[in-house]
Amino acid sequence: MSDTIGFVGLGRMGANMARCLHDKKFKVTAVYDVRPEVTADLAREIGATACSTLAQVTELADIIFTVVTDDKAQLGIFESPSDNLLRGKAEGKIFVNCATVSPKVHVKVEEIVGKVGASSLEGCMASSIPQAREGKLYLMVGGKEAVFQKVKPVLDALSTALTYAGTAGKAAQVKALVNMVMNINTLALAEGLGLAHALGLNLDMIRNVFAQTGAASRVLQTDGEDMQNREHSCFFSAEHAAKDSGIALALARELGLQIALADATKCQYDRLVKLGAGELDKSAISELTFLDRRAREIPE
Amino acid sequence: MSDTIGFVGLGRMGANMARCLHDKKFKVTAVYDVRPEVTADLAREIGATACSTLAQVTELADIIFTVVTDDKAQLGIFESPSDNLLRGKAEGKIFVNCATVSPKVHVKVEEIVGKVGASSLEGCMASSIPQAREGKLYLMVGGKEAVFQKVKPVLDALSTALTYAGTAGKAAQVKALVNMVMNINTLALAEGLGLAHALGLNLDMIRNVFAQTGAASRVLQTDGEDMQNREHSCFFSAEHAAKDSGIALALARELGLQIALADATKCQYDRLVKLGAGELDKSAISELTFLDRRAREIPE
Repeated sequence: MSDTIGFVGLGRMGANMARCLHDKKFKVTAVYDVRPEVTADLAREIGATACSTLAQVTELADIIFTVVTDDKAQLGIFESPSDNLLRGKAEGKIFVNCATVSPKVHVKVEEIVGKVGASSLEGCMASSIPQAREGKLYLMVGGKEAVFQKVKPVLDALSTALTYAGTAGKAAQVKALVNMVMNINTLALAEGLGLAHALGLNLDMIRNVFAQTGAASRVLQTDGEDMQNREHSCFFSAEHAAKDSGIALALARELGLQIALADATKCQYDRLVKLGAGELDKSAISELTFLDRRAREIPE
Repeated sequence: MSDTIGFVGLGRMGANMARCLHDKKFKVTAVYDVRPEVTADLAREIGATACSTLAQVTELADIIFTVVTDDKAQLGIFESPSDNLLRGKAEGKIFVNCATVSPKVHVKVEEIVGKVGASSLEGCMASSIPQAREGKLYLMVGGKEAVFQKVKPVLDALSTALTYAGTAGKAAQVKALVNMVMNINTLALAEGLGLAHALGLNLDMIRNVFAQTGAASRVLQTDGEDMQNREHSCFFSAEHAAKDSGIALALARELGLQIALADATKCQYDRLVKLGAGELDKSAISELTFLDRRAREIPE
């Protein structure tokens, strides 16, 4: 594969994806971040050009990964009047947008880039920094299937599990669904452990029984012990949990579908955020379901 | 082990547990059911005495397994004035009560049998007929630990996973907790698949993504495809789901613990039962979360 690759947004995810592709002998030719020193450091590390404008990234790369913060930033890099990715010679270029943004933003971006003969994909990641560095992302892609096929070799290098979810915006919908169900299962577990604790049952025994029965779940493995030990160092924040459940609920509302558990779960995560615990891990929801915790301060 | 073993209640669970122990060379000496022909058939099959009274079972066996239908029946076999297990020479005998009954019934039974020098255990099963036949039950036991140790060789022969849950009633509490969490996870899955369907997403793809992410759960494996295909043949009925969530909620209420998801889940299962679908599998809860199903009849 001789396509050149660019990166926009060099936070820990973006930078590590760039490093990963560089290690795997892809030609990462252009990098850009709003912080020039960050751009310069990474450029030096992997032998890419430190771009001073977005337009320059598009000039220097065929496939451009963007990993920005939110809806506004995602639209901004394609639309901002002062500088944007489409000011470069964009025809034929492919933008793979990996930020967690609203599904409709991906649809909008596809429309904008299409006008200048470029393509876009949404690359929706359900993993964290180490996976980005090692090329072990869980990656769901939305967009035109032909575009997906073109970029697939690069995406394969970044991920161990690659899923084509459908048209633009669909991957973000799937991610919202995944996190909605995960959040419900998390609160279900917190309620189960909270009630077990109130009943004076041994929580090690309970977690073991849960693991062997119909109560088993991925979150039991990832969060069960942490809930028991009030260890809420953040892997996936309560605030993110509330946000993603909110996205799923908004989709359901538009379609006239009532989903009672998703609703009740969002309420509890909102409560946790209001209590100032939004930056703790989602496991902190157990602070609301253990009788002897509710009166005490939520641990840092 | 030279203890003789009796069985009371020869439904499919009880009869298959008796067959299993007989196959494994335990001395199953006495069987009893309210249906004399059922008693006679099993007695002939495994070479046990077909007892015509409960008292006779206690006379002929050291360890008596009881597998009856509900709280009333469970108390009845120890208290009924016309015939009961304690009318036989009960001193030193051990009763292992395997029906799904309220935790407090196990406490009461332990008290009643203790008065005549007998012991009891609750044997709480989280498995079905084939597991009973093959000695692969998931078995949780409550009662005095010394009594548990005495009966352990027999219980080991019946189960692949044996857990001592605590004093009498604790195993039933654990089972209620397991099913409460399972029911919530089941509805969470139904909401996820229902919303995915409403969004026009491919449900095979979604189940695959769920299985690889934080949305994964045991019920995804057991019920996911059935929800998609509206295949609700009963393994664990919606009615049972409603009942077990209700037991857990009652325990929580007594302790002053609010558990919002368990509550919301119970409401949905109650709704399903009211719609006449109580005998369908718990997977039928998806009939309430798919937009295009709600207007149609729930399938048989």
